[in-house]
Amino acid sequence: MSEHFPADSVGLVSPQSLDFDTPLTLDSGAVLERYTLVFETYGELNAARDNAVLICHALSGDHHAAGYHADTPHKPGWWDNCIGPGKPVDTNRFFVVCPNNLGGCAGSTGPLSLNPATGEPFGPDFPLITVRDWVESQARLADALGIETWAAVMGGSLGGMQALQWAVDYPDRLRHAVVIAAAPRLSTQNIAFNEVARHAIRSDGDFHAGRYYEHGVVPARGLMLARMLGHITYLSDDVLMAKFGRELRDGKLNYGYDIEFQIESYLRYQGESFVKRFDANTYLLMTKSLDYFDPAAKFDDSLAKAVARTQAKFFVASFSSDWRFSPARSREIVRALLEADLDVSYVELESELGHDSFLLEIPLYHAALAAWFQRIASDGGVP
Amino acid sequence: MSEHFPADSVGLVSPQSLDFDTPLTLDSGAVLERYTLVFETYGELNAARDNAVLICHALSGDHHAAGYHADTPHKPGWWDNCIGPGKPVDTNRFFVVCPNNLGGCAGSTGPLSLNPATGEPFGPDFPLITVRDWVESQARLADALGIETWAAVMGGSLGGMQALQWAVDYPDRLRHAVVIAAAPRLSTQNIAFNEVARHAIRSDGDFHAGRYYEHGVVPARGLMLARMLGHITYLSDDVLMAKFGRELRDGKLNYGYDIEFQIESYLRYQGESFVKRFDANTYLLMTKSLDYFDPAAKFDDSLAKAVARTQAKFFVASFSSDWRFSPARSREIVRALLEADLDVSYVELESELGHDSFLLEIPLYHAALAAWFQRIASDGGVP
Repeated sequence: MSEHFPADSVGLVSPQSLDFDTPLTLDSGAVLERYTLVFETYGELNAARDNAVLICHALSGDHHAAGYHADTPHKPGWWDNCIGPGKPVDTNRFFVVCPNNLGGCAGSTGPLSLNPATGEPFGPDFPLITVRDWVESQARLADALGIETWAAVMGGSLGGMQALQWAVDYPDRLRHAVVIAAAPRLSTQNIAFNEVARHAIRSDGDFHAGRYYEHGVVPARGLMLARMLGHITYLSDDVLMAKFGRELRDGKLNYGYDIEFQIESYLRYQGESFVKRFDANTYLLMTKSLDYFDPAAKFDDSLAKAVARTQAKFFVASFSSDWRFSPARSREIVRALLEADLDVSYVELESELGHDSFLLEIPLYHAALAAWFQRIASDGGVP
Repeated sequence: MSEHFPADSVGLVSPQSLDFDTPLTLDSGAVLERYTLVFETYGELNAARDNAVLICHALSGDHHAAGYHADTPHKPGWWDNCIGPGKPVDTNRFFVVCPNNLGGCAGSTGPLSLNPATGEPFGPDFPLITVRDWVESQARLADALGIETWAAVMGGSLGGMQALQWAVDYPDRLRHAVVIAAAPRLSTQNIAFNEVARHAIRSDGDFHAGRYYEHGVVPARGLMLARMLGHITYLSDDVLMAKFGRELRDGKLNYGYDIEFQIESYLRYQGESFVKRFDANTYLLMTKSLDYFDPAAKFDDSLAKAVARTQAKFFVASFSSDWRFSPARSREIVRALLEADLDVSYVELESELGHDSFLLEIPLYHAALAAWFQRIASDGGVP
């Protein structure tokens, strides 16, 4: 670990990757003959192999959850405030695994990868992936790493949905599920926002029906719009008001169509930065995964039935100002878990930071997570 | 009145128009040398000229508020459920005037009009218009119609903001202000949504910096996106869930990028219809008017001070599930009015129909409006 990094950081990390050549039949019926998963690990797997924690990322996340990459030494992983020595997910105790999801654009097989059938990038031919498919691919990763049972599967937002799906599909392979700022399935409004984002990308003249790689362009305008819109839904009205209010960029009104308010400038910046780091086809795929997520569907629409086979213990958390996946949605999950007679802890945290709260270092939130992971360690005999 | 129309309808109506050639200096400093206002009237102006009601339209509205046009005999005006013989705004008693706002695209001077300086449509050269500018142009319309004082100025959403601005700018020229589903000024989130809508239009390859008329195209994809997004914010999560839920268009999942859920189909239809009837430059202008609206700005940010000079009586209404301009925003208006010691009635209506509620025939809402207009009639001695 480099001395340039904070003492509670996992320090310098490098992604690993594993190739899988057992065909994976997807929910859609399509088959991935072979695929690669890129992932990072932090901490050490103990001799009993019972201290492993799977971190599942959300829509725009990747495998770089904690620590630093050599080429970006000032930018830690996306959940670095939560994962590290002495942090809530304490890497002195736990072996943490975070993969880039299938269909992603950070190294795991996805639309940017070469389609063996054509020698060209998959692009729009990459099959749609569901949360169930991710769980299946993550289970194979666990097999490859010699992890029979996760001490915990954990995630926020779409990541929390994966943790929930794990309890449905592999009820015996996790001891705890940590489901943060999630929902049992998307509401109509959630789907509607996703559809607007997709439509922005797909109607961009540079989209070329998803084959933009071949044209040497990216649908930058559409992806930028999708991100600007997404960003509004990640933040609460209150935090936007507190951060930007009606502050003017130039200190006065210009009565023109260029930027007047700081919030406009901020949104454009967010959109433009995102375009540089994210692939539009992956964005489409991730929003579809969200739309499709519905673990209760195959169990008479009863989430309680869906989770009935697990004995995993659940930690569920939500944030008061999250209007993308509001506390009411987390309470739906909690009610189903209680109906299934499961061990559930639920905390509804006061935060005016909106959906993004799950990524932020909010003291009460991190204290609750730390306490829960203390329990996970005790339950599992992890020292 | 045609016997083909319902008895409580104002029946067949025709727009009128008036040309104004006194230059209008706008908030932006620009000057409109001459302009035309298109408007409709319903009912009769009484001899005392004290029974006139001004209806102000919102973002995508126009002057056709009630009754039927000969060429669209099955499609009544946008507020027909509220305006007519025996309806809350009873045309047996009141003389109702509804103009198309300056900058609009339904006949009043706007981006589609010919710029006398060039002989070409104004397009992006049409000056930005504020709510104050609208009030000024409406005051001149009142002059032209011989209406010294409105019995009421009334509107919902952006229309309600005009009613509020009237009380600030012409405190003696209205006896009542009816302000429905409005806000004292836009929140950061409101502006953010507007900016995404504008960015969608402006980044459309067919926008041509607003000169799309000259290219024989319209920025249909951008305007469609703007409307789809707008539509989500006009409806509540609950009503979307009740109306569409997660219903599939084809009864099963197709695992493709085409429409899966009914809500997607509905949004696209809304977007496509809108493109056929609305001009993108006007949409941009209207969203800017919304952003700029801030009647308190010139009064030390005190709305109470802004309205201090009027003796108008206020009826303010909001809807429980409106998250675009929530009840909390109406309460801000009410607090300021009370601080200014004004006569205020405020009703917070239970409705799960979101912002769009103000356009709908909700019994308690219409009963409250009817009672208020009864009071307006009594106060003014209108029989």
